[in-house]
Amino acid sequence: MNEKLYTLLDNSFDDMVSIRRHLHQHPEVSFHETNTAKYIQDFYKDLGVEYRSNVGENGVVARVEGSKPGKTVALRADFDALPIQDQKDVPYKSTVDGVMHACGHDGHTATLLQLAKAIHELKDELAGTYVFIHQHAEEYAPGGAISMIEDGCLEGVDVIFGTHLWSLMEPNTIQYVSGPIMAAADRIEITVQGAGGHGASPHQTKDAIVIASQLVTNFQQLVSRRVDPIQSAVLSIGSFVSDNAFNIIADQAVLQGTVRTFSPEIRDLMESEIQRIAKGTALMHDCEITVEYTRGYPAVVNHEKETAYLRDVAQEVPGVKAVIETIPQMGGEDFAYYLENVPGTFFFTGAQPENAFPHHHPKFDFDETSMLTAAKTLGAAALSYQN
Amino acid sequence: MNEKLYTLLDNSFDDMVSIRRHLHQHPEVSFHETNTAKYIQDFYKDLGVEYRSNVGENGVVARVEGSKPGKTVALRADFDALPIQDQKDVPYKSTVDGVMHACGHDGHTATLLQLAKAIHELKDELAGTYVFIHQHAEEYAPGGAISMIEDGCLEGVDVIFGTHLWSLMEPNTIQYVSGPIMAAADRIEITVQGAGGHGASPHQTKDAIVIASQLVTNFQQLVSRRVDPIQSAVLSIGSFVSDNAFNIIADQAVLQGTVRTFSPEIRDLMESEIQRIAKGTALMHDCEITVEYTRGYPAVVNHEKETAYLRDVAQEVPGVKAVIETIPQMGGEDFAYYLENVPGTFFFTGAQPENAFPHHHPKFDFDETSMLTAAKTLGAAALSYQN
Amino acid sequence: MNEKLYTLLDNSFDDMVSIRRHLHQHPEVSFHETNTAKYIQDFYKDLGVEYRSNVGENGVVARVEGSKPGKTVALRADFDALPIQDQKDVPYKSTVDGVMHACGHDGHTATLLQLAKAIHELKDELAGTYVFIHQHAEEYAPGGAISMIEDGCLEGVDVIFGTHLWSLMEPNTIQYVSGPIMAAADRIEITVQGAGGHGASPHQTKDAIVIASQLVTNFQQLVSRRVDPIQSAVLSIGSFVSDNAFNIIADQAVLQGTVRTFSPEIRDLMESEIQRIAKGTALMHDCEITVEYTRGYPAVVNHEKETAYLRDVAQEVPGVKAVIETIPQMGGEDFAYYLENVPGTFFFTGAQPENAFPHHHPKFDFDETSMLTAAKTLGAAALSYQN
Amino acid sequence: MNEKLYTLLDNSFDDMVSIRRHLHQHPEVSFHETNTAKYIQDFYKDLGVEYRSNVGENGVVARVEGSKPGKTVALRADFDALPIQDQKDVPYKSTVDGVMHACGHDGHTATLLQLAKAIHELKDELAGTYVFIHQHAEEYAPGGAISMIEDGCLEGVDVIFGTHLWSLMEPNTIQYVSGPIMAAADRIEITVQGAGGHGASPHQTKDAIVIASQLVTNFQQLVSRRVDPIQSAVLSIGSFVSDNAFNIIADQAVLQGTVRTFSPEIRDLMESEIQRIAKGTALMHDCEITVEYTRGYPAVVNHEKETAYLRDVAQEVPGVKAVIETIPQMGGEDFAYYLENVPGTFFFTGAQPENAFPHHHPKFDFDETSMLTAAKTLGAAALSYQN
Repeated sequence: MNEKLYTLLDNSFDDMVSIRRHLHQHPEVSFHETNTAKYIQDFYKDLGVEYRSNVGENGVVARVEGSKPGKTVALRADFDALPIQDQKDVPYKSTVDGVMHACGHDGHTATLLQLAKAIHELKDELAGTYVFIHQHAEEYAPGGAISMIEDGCLEGVDVIFGTHLWSLMEPNTIQYVSGPIMAAADRIEITVQGAGGHGASPHQTKDAIVIASQLVTNFQQLVSRRVDPIQSAVLSIGSFVSDNAFNIIADQAVLQGTVRTFSPEIRDLMESEIQRIAKGTALMHDCEITVEYTRGYPAVVNHEKETAYLRDVAQEVPGVKAVIETIPQMGGEDFAYYLENVPGTFFFTGAQPENAFPHHHPKFDFDETSMLTAAKTLGAAALSYQN
Repeated sequence: MNEKLYTLLDNSFDDMVSIRRHLHQHPEVSFHETNTAKYIQDFYKDLGVEYRSNVGENGVVARVEGSKPGKTVALRADFDALPIQDQKDVPYKSTVDGVMHACGHDGHTATLLQLAKAIHELKDELAGTYVFIHQHAEEYAPGGAISMIEDGCLEGVDVIFGTHLWSLMEPNTIQYVSGPIMAAADRIEITVQGAGGHGASPHQTKDAIVIASQLVTNFQQLVSRRVDPIQSAVLSIGSFVSDNAFNIIADQAVLQGTVRTFSPEIRDLMESEIQRIAKGTALMHDCEITVEYTRGYPAVVNHEKETAYLRDVAQEVPGVKAVIETIPQMGGEDFAYYLENVPGTFFFTGAQPENAFPHHHPKFDFDETSMLTAAKTLGAAALSYQN
Repeated sequence: MNEKLYTLLDNSFDDMVSIRRHLHQHPEVSFHETNTAKYIQDFYKDLGVEYRSNVGENGVVARVEGSKPGKTVALRADFDALPIQDQKDVPYKSTVDGVMHACGHDGHTATLLQLAKAIHELKDELAGTYVFIHQHAEEYAPGGAISMIEDGCLEGVDVIFGTHLWSLMEPNTIQYVSGPIMAAADRIEITVQGAGGHGASPHQTKDAIVIASQLVTNFQQLVSRRVDPIQSAVLSIGSFVSDNAFNIIADQAVLQGTVRTFSPEIRDLMESEIQRIAKGTALMHDCEITVEYTRGYPAVVNHEKETAYLRDVAQEVPGVKAVIETIPQMGGEDFAYYLENVPGTFFFTGAQPENAFPHHHPKFDFDETSMLTAAKTLGAAALSYQN
Repeated sequence: MNEKLYTLLDNSFDDMVSIRRHLHQHPEVSFHETNTAKYIQDFYKDLGVEYRSNVGENGVVARVEGSKPGKTVALRADFDALPIQDQKDVPYKSTVDGVMHACGHDGHTATLLQLAKAIHELKDELAGTYVFIHQHAEEYAPGGAISMIEDGCLEGVDVIFGTHLWSLMEPNTIQYVSGPIMAAADRIEITVQGAGGHGASPHQTKDAIVIASQLVTNFQQLVSRRVDPIQSAVLSIGSFVSDNAFNIIADQAVLQGTVRTFSPEIRDLMESEIQRIAKGTALMHDCEITVEYTRGYPAVVNHEKETAYLRDVAQEVPGVKAVIETIPQMGGEDFAYYLENVPGTFFFTGAQPENAFPHHHPKFDFDETSMLTAAKTLGAAALSYQN
């Protein structure tokens, strides 16, 4: 059966590329993807496949029933773009100023649409049910996954698979790992409220820049001393703003940063220790420091059994150059929420183009043949799951 | 003779207040004081006193010759205002949006004009020559003093006196000190050039915010460890800007600050040690740190003999409540340049109003009766110097 | 065949405990284990097993030949003790003041001796060759492994296995992991040479305590910023000594510390970055900082194939409660050197007693039944390797 | 009258040197100066001058009454030595191993003894009373002054004068200053109690060395930011001890240091801010930090009138090369206590030898002719005070 699927997908490759390039030229930022959602709905409407629109907000969920009873397998692709100016010089360059598919979600969508079409064509020979989750707003917290789950997209689902085309991994490789594969990504905003004054009179002030600088310096021992060295954690202060005349002493400094972790315990620890360091620093300087800690997506934690299953399936998929145990990435993904609800696994499909740029780069692109590998692997995972 | 001067000044007090309030309502910022200069010129023209305009740039220098030969005594008042919004609620409030005499230079000018008038009236009984230096642009480096001196305002001058009305000192007190009375005020701008990147990948970056924070922290030991504790020095970083998205790692941070010192050796030390700390920090992080150190006014260093003279003279001036040895102020003043060229002294005339605010505060004001004390003390210093 | 081995081992358990307790009462510190070596030699002499003594220095290598040709399998146990005062209250407590088997090497030796005896008894039915490496001086760098290898203990060896009884893991579990299982453990000694002086005159000194404190503080960003968060690294300064009168300024401070890493690249990075931070700090303070970086044991890196083999073998061993993929430990082990020369794997045998203390604790002890599990697993790994 | 005194003193110079050299060869450390006290008592006994011994503890107070009523003037010299090994190569080198007059107190004593003798010879021609305070234990807190005052040495005293021979000032100069001339000298001992552990497991510990290092670093901003830059303050950590194995994490670090200030407000500020920084740091690390702040001598604060008097008197003393307004020294002196009880002034007598070393240096020595200048100046101050 898988062979038939592979053939159908091979034949669909040109369409897959067309869809991807169309979407690439018409990107829409998170929570504003109405035309993209319409495009997906139209695709299913034309196919005659049952679908539900406005799931969560802009999400679309299609469903294909096999002719025999079986498991319900969900496959997910996200479809939002980023507020980045496309700087590539290709015919399918973004036509929308300042908006770009710089993360490959156009490819995810093209992959899933053609895979859905192929499964639909085979449905009389298939057992089980296939759910195609087209998710909006992966790039922007709180993300689309939560609301789509609340709106029922996982109802009856036994297992879920998802993949991310990855521009910095060998094309047509499948890269899996059990346990955490992508990090929890949280946001902090810290306001140091000192007391300003004349640059020549430090003793009459509480120098917010000195205080905030000590805070940044002291934060370094959080990862170096308080986190188990076997575990991973990152605290980066990306922004430090206290914009004043040169000859005064600042009353306020505002820091913004990100925290990345894989384990919930380390995540809790980072939050509480950031608070503790801020409190100690405030006491030391008799000033006020407020820390606003906003949790973003949790870590994507792959289920062990499903990950081993995916690994074994991928070994048999034609066109897969290698099946590699990968190391986790510190980036975030709201696929995390699906895996909190049902078993499954999230994997990378290597898609490195000739001139590779990292994700979110204005010149980001990916190798399009890898879409086919992604489609075949997701499809094989779905079909074989009935056995 | 001094008694006659005091009487003339007493009688001029209402005019002094009128002039001050007129100027207060029509402030002009440094290097743009053309109307104020015109006002001063008209005053001398009406009096029939010889003057030179456009000295340096907007400066005005008037000259009164006594009937007998003697010393040439210079008196200086500055006349520029500040880019600050007047927030006082008084009838003579600034009429110019965002510009204000928030440092008392209006009072200095009114004081000197009426003193010049009184000396002019007494000139037939006086020995010596009296030079009235009305200086533009004290508030903004490089200041007006340098160019006025280059333009000859100190030619033939034997001694110079100047005073600053001070809103935070007891009204009608004269406060003197030999040696440094106001600090050298320098400016630094530091650019930390690291290498930016994704907030989750610190190892691929050189985190400019961490580096700049360590720089600020390390700067603290400059004053605490490298400056003789008997000496004074201040390094304040007033501005720290690295304004980015929260989830990246910054490639650049820009610090601006001020350095205040009294002694030239400590000033040199501060400059060289700031450079040294920056170089060490750059080496430590394999990044680039550039320090631009711009020297502002040097310290105002009062001459010992002239300061003792002024102290003794002030003791005899009617209306002076107290003659007090003061402590140096960390603020800067370009009166420094006059004292590098001729002997003299700069002193404070206490002028604390009922509700006192510091200089440069939007609600700054001063006690106007103290102008009279300033005028009498400067006048007595000038006249007695002929003895 | 394995079944016969298990039976022999079960029957030897009392002897195993006796040997372990005898050794526990007569501990000898690293490089001084002559009596222990003699004990081991006597054991083999009594058995009639061929052995070589003084291998490396105090090492003993015994060898049992099966009746058929086959692979040469080495098994290793270390036998040195630690300079720690035994604080346990047990009949087999150490009889040597200040010396104690606080790491379980007595158990390793008892295990290997009884296993050698059992294999010796079965030798006519066995294929291959069995090499029993009794290593001295594991606790003290440079360790005994290097010299034993140089002295030929691995000659002809096809594979090596070793285990560590672990007091903080569930008794009778086998804990394996492919790749790094124990860290590279290096030593640093840093001397900050400033310039001392009177406590009241910091400006005439280079304060070694301030400099060394900044060094320690700045080191924190090494792990937090320069090491890939997915990787593990530790830099701990264990000793900071600048012991002076309270009212002086120190001319010297001496820091000592340890660096732990798993990957050679991160190890190199740590060394070079420590040097870089020291150089930058020295430049910043115009002082001298010398860093002596002494490499200790490299990381123990298990071979993938042999680790998978061991895992599969362990599943079948009677008495093994669980076979668990473990996480690496940041401690060091000179088993590392064997694995740089021949394939093999090092694993933990859980041996948690009722009141568990960490290794190197004065009350350290372990569950003795776990020796049997260790012996059976090592034995099964050796015998099955011939298939 | 002063002329007679000067002549007597000139004639006594050889004796003065003899006494000084005798004392130099027989130094005794603070609170153990029994032989020195005996020597002083014998001197007065031989002269027939009334004295009281064991004042405070080892102090000696002699008293000479003039023939007419007048003021009671006290003159003070200290006589203890230091636990320092004499490294000079002179005939009068210390004969006591590890003990040395490295601060000039031998000279102070010789000076005062000969001055007392001269005044005693002139007593029939003198008005007033002369009190010679020979104080033990100046070098070691709590010092001898407090107990001598409690024991009545200042009873009836109208004014007190004292001087310190100073090896780093031009010989035979008198250096005075009104207000603070020597600093308050306090002692701090700080214990950081963290939680120790294995060097490879920072997350299970509270690293006392990291915490104490941050404390030292954070202390730097105390002087740089919280003390008025016009004021002086020093905080030096002279000792940092956490002496452990290299591969552990320290549970404790002990810091000792000194705090120097001139003003009581700044002294209070330093104490409270050190406590605040310690508390904040402890909170930040969830550990315990105890600060023991022990106040030593307060600042020596010269009285304005008596200082001006001394300055004027010194101008007239033959042999005085210059009378110089000096800057305060950050060192401490328990002369402070006398000036808290009676008016007076403490001044330096320059005594720089050819090869000058700072006070407390093992090669310290001073120019002996300066003793004569000290004696004449103290004597003139005493005698003229009756006018």
